[in-house]
Amino acid sequence: MSDKKNFSSYACHRDIPTRWMDNDIYGHVNNVNYYSFFDTAVNGFLIEQGVLGLEKGETIGLVVETGCRYFAPLSFPDTVVAGISVSHIGNSSVRYEVGLFKKGDTEPAAQGFFVHVYVDRANRRPTSIPEKMKNVLSAIESVG
Amino acid sequence: MSDKKNFSSYACHRDIPTRWMDNDIYGHVNNVNYYSFFDTAVNGFLIEQGVLGLEKGETIGLVVETGCRYFAPLSFPDTVVAGISVSHIGNSSVRYEVGLFKKGDTEPAAQGFFVHVYVDRANRRPTSIPEKMKNVLSAIESVG
Amino acid sequence: MSDKKNFSSYACHRDIPTRWMDNDIYGHVNNVNYYSFFDTAVNGFLIEQGVLGLEKGETIGLVVETGCRYFAPLSFPDTVVAGISVSHIGNSSVRYEVGLFKKGDTEPAAQGFFVHVYVDRANRRPTSIPEKMKNVLSAIESVG
Amino acid sequence: MSDKKNFSSYACHRDIPTRWMDNDIYGHVNNVNYYSFFDTAVNGFLIEQGVLGLEKGETIGLVVETGCRYFAPLSFPDTVVAGISVSHIGNSSVRYEVGLFKKGDTEPAAQGFFVHVYVDRANRRPTSIPEKMKNVLSAIESVG
Repeated sequence: MSDKKNFSSYACHRDIPTRWMDNDIYGHVNNVNYYSFFDTAVNGFLIEQGVLGLEKGETIGLVVETGCRYFAPLSFPDTVVAGISVSHIGNSSVRYEVGLFKKGDTEPAAQGFFVHVYVDRANRRPTSIPEKMKNVLSAIESVG
Repeated sequence: MSDKKNFSSYACHRDIPTRWMDNDIYGHVNNVNYYSFFDTAVNGFLIEQGVLGLEKGETIGLVVETGCRYFAPLSFPDTVVAGISVSHIGNSSVRYEVGLFKKGDTEPAAQGFFVHVYVDRANRRPTSIPEKMKNVLSAIESVG
Repeated sequence: MSDKKNFSSYACHRDIPTRWMDNDIYGHVNNVNYYSFFDTAVNGFLIEQGVLGLEKGETIGLVVETGCRYFAPLSFPDTVVAGISVSHIGNSSVRYEVGLFKKGDTEPAAQGFFVHVYVDRANRRPTSIPEKMKNVLSAIESVG
Repeated sequence: MSDKKNFSSYACHRDIPTRWMDNDIYGHVNNVNYYSFFDTAVNGFLIEQGVLGLEKGETIGLVVETGCRYFAPLSFPDTVVAGISVSHIGNSSVRYEVGLFKKGDTEPAAQGFFVHVYVDRANRRPTSIPEKMKNVLSAIESVG
């Protein structure tokens, strides 16, 4: 299990304002919604980099494993900042490290990972990550 | 049924970035999530104005009616801007008009309303809207 | 505004168990999730009747208007029963009436409606409701 | 990383019908929603056993870590069956193993875990798991 990483450990960041219904009965963002922040940070990055076309890509990234450790609560109306880096690029898979921070904090409220395997849209079999995407992923690869 | 209202018709506005999972199978934000934007815009306003305490208020606003008309699709990674105004303040109830705009647009993607009835937290019976809240609501009341 | 309709007023029914995160900070199912129950009841009916193909249909139903009145709270782990009927079939649109009941109750916890307009999947322009679907809709049309 | 466990490996099971909006743009239940199934299965079990009071308990279970591996897609209108067992009971923490099955299948569509730490509701510091809850947890403890 990796150590806590602080805000500046991540290669890129994305603001994700919380929503009223993110809060559960205890007044904190429900544990499930953290994964929506992961999903949004990773796919948002890929769309902005021009390597994820919502409707037309020949390959799609299937999520094969995710995980999260929760350190401190978040609550609406907090804005969360999600930091992402890539920690592993394989032939068809990529692993992202994700940290969630209450805006302004350097210590994470939560930390996790997200693994995509690229498959052919039609037959859903693993396929090599396209070269253009590999370049985009390498640009946010974390060192060590 | 009221006419379409444009961006500047609303008294205050709030940015709500979409999330990856807001999109449904057709590649557009699912109709259900629009109500989360309403909920977030109204409660976010009340919290920022200091009249909605998440855990301690003696009165709580119960939602008794909502409605929405959908004019144009929204899709992740769009940012939505929610505009709100108050169109009616009763003794214990308040009606908000809400417009949802793709950021930068003046024509709404959707338009709806949201009615709160204030009740006592303990016995859940209708209660007069506190004076401080009435003042906050009056400040965003739409004319005519 | 229509009167409250009881359980047996609806032509078909579907059990929808609540989920833990449906509950909001007040311990009740958040108002937004009621629309997910509407969405699930209507689309579930259409899929079971064989008139909604998730990926292949030439026409898709776009939601153009929804609304809900909330009468009584629901809470996890309640099971909700959604009742639906069709109240209007136009050339390209259909309006459903939906009631939500705590399982076992005859009085609704909430009541609303849901309007689909059928459009061509490619150009998104309104199109006549296919004959096969009209037959399915007519079978749950409410009288008077 | 543990091996895949089949349906009968789990001590108790809960049906969780999918919802229309669980499906994402690829026509499959979005990865985030799997954690809502975990949350619902675990908390539903605790409520039914009488050891989780939504509003009045002195101790609450905070989620400190979760994880999931995804093996096969799920899609609305599938019903998911969630199986749960307890794999570790500490002084203040409990770890659940969760498997998600398309109803009727014996091989899992996904498999994960869910760790609760019990804290005092007021000061949010770890506290011993109450005896009554330990008994309930022991009853679904997996062997070996």
